[in-house]
Amino acid sequence: MAGLDPLIRLQERFASLPGIGPKSAMRLAYHVINMPQDEVKEFAQDMYRARLAIRYCTVCGNLTDGEKCSICEDETRDRSTVCVVKDVRDIWAIEKTQEYRGVYHVLGGTISPLRGIGPDDIRIAELIERVREGGIKEIILATNPDVEGEATAVYISKLISPMGVRLTRIAHGVPVGGELEYTDSVTLGKALEGRTAF
Amino acid sequence: MAGLDPLIRLQERFASLPGIGPKSAMRLAYHVINMPQDEVKEFAQDMYRARLAIRYCTVCGNLTDGEKCSICEDETRDRSTVCVVKDVRDIWAIEKTQEYRGVYHVLGGTISPLRGIGPDDIRIAELIERVREGGIKEIILATNPDVEGEATAVYISKLISPMGVRLTRIAHGVPVGGELEYTDSVTLGKALEGRTAF
Repeated sequence: MAGLDPLIRLQERFASLPGIGPKSAMRLAYHVINMPQDEVKEFAQDMYRARLAIRYCTVCGNLTDGEKCSICEDETRDRSTVCVVKDVRDIWAIEKTQEYRGVYHVLGGTISPLRGIGPDDIRIAELIERVREGGIKEIILATNPDVEGEATAVYISKLISPMGVRLTRIAHGVPVGGELEYTDSVTLGKALEGRTAF
Repeated sequence: MAGLDPLIRLQERFASLPGIGPKSAMRLAYHVINMPQDEVKEFAQDMYRARLAIRYCTVCGNLTDGEKCSICEDETRDRSTVCVVKDVRDIWAIEKTQEYRGVYHVLGGTISPLRGIGPDDIRIAELIERVREGGIKEIILATNPDVEGEATAVYISKLISPMGVRLTRIAHGVPVGGELEYTDSVTLGKALEGRTAF
């Protein structure tokens, strides 16, 4: 359509976001065109401001608008326990449980030879450095229970086990509320393997 | 999460868009945070620029970045035939067929008492004014073949039929490539009713 280049450009922008196809992108672009001008301005400003304001915590790699994240800044958190996760969103999931009072370390990915991600591409060296600095008693490996997550956990454990720090892995098992009948056999096997005294 | 207000605000912005729930909105906001800063700036600029640049054609209500849309400006289009549609996107759909050489009139909605949309809330008066100005020989009512679209078509036809302009309605029938077996009975009934000589 002639004369609609700005609309097409906006559609292309939306289509570049994850999970948004060309049709949804056009619907979104069209919606924006019909929004009050002030609202579009605020949306655009909020987008750029969020990008400028949010950065990574220099200690753990969590998102923050300062130098350190709110968890690393929190004096009441137990800094001797570090939970190692793949992604910032894993922190949010764990924080929701309100069960964990230690701190975190975000890897920013998992080792994946197929996708060309090696140990040097994720924040493993930073973790080793934190352990070396001392004060850490336990490292909880909380990467996902998939092939890449397991491989990453094994890789890290090999580096850290000689350093005299307790190494643990989150438990795998039947989800609470789940049914044995519908649980896959690998999970069920892990649940049996990791059984605890009743 | 403390210190993440700009991210939360961006998430809320995304969640206000049609078809985007809170989880997708967070994924999008998180994606933006991880995009190169320049790219986010351009996205934000493109969004606001599109909103500023795109307006409605003063003749037909189509989108344009000028005063008139590219179709109304086009000297080769037949201005005596006006196709009345609900929405700008209907123009795009019809233009794709490359079958139509007339011009358009966008209503910007359909009459819907349930949603409180009356005849005065859509661009019917503007259509009547265009007919009154003269030069129009045929009005094609191309509103959707649903209850509201039909009601709107009937309403407009009652106003225009005394004005000596040919009034037509787009044909309803079995979609090309469709199967009779799976066609709903209302459509099939319309297909029979509107049968043409072979």
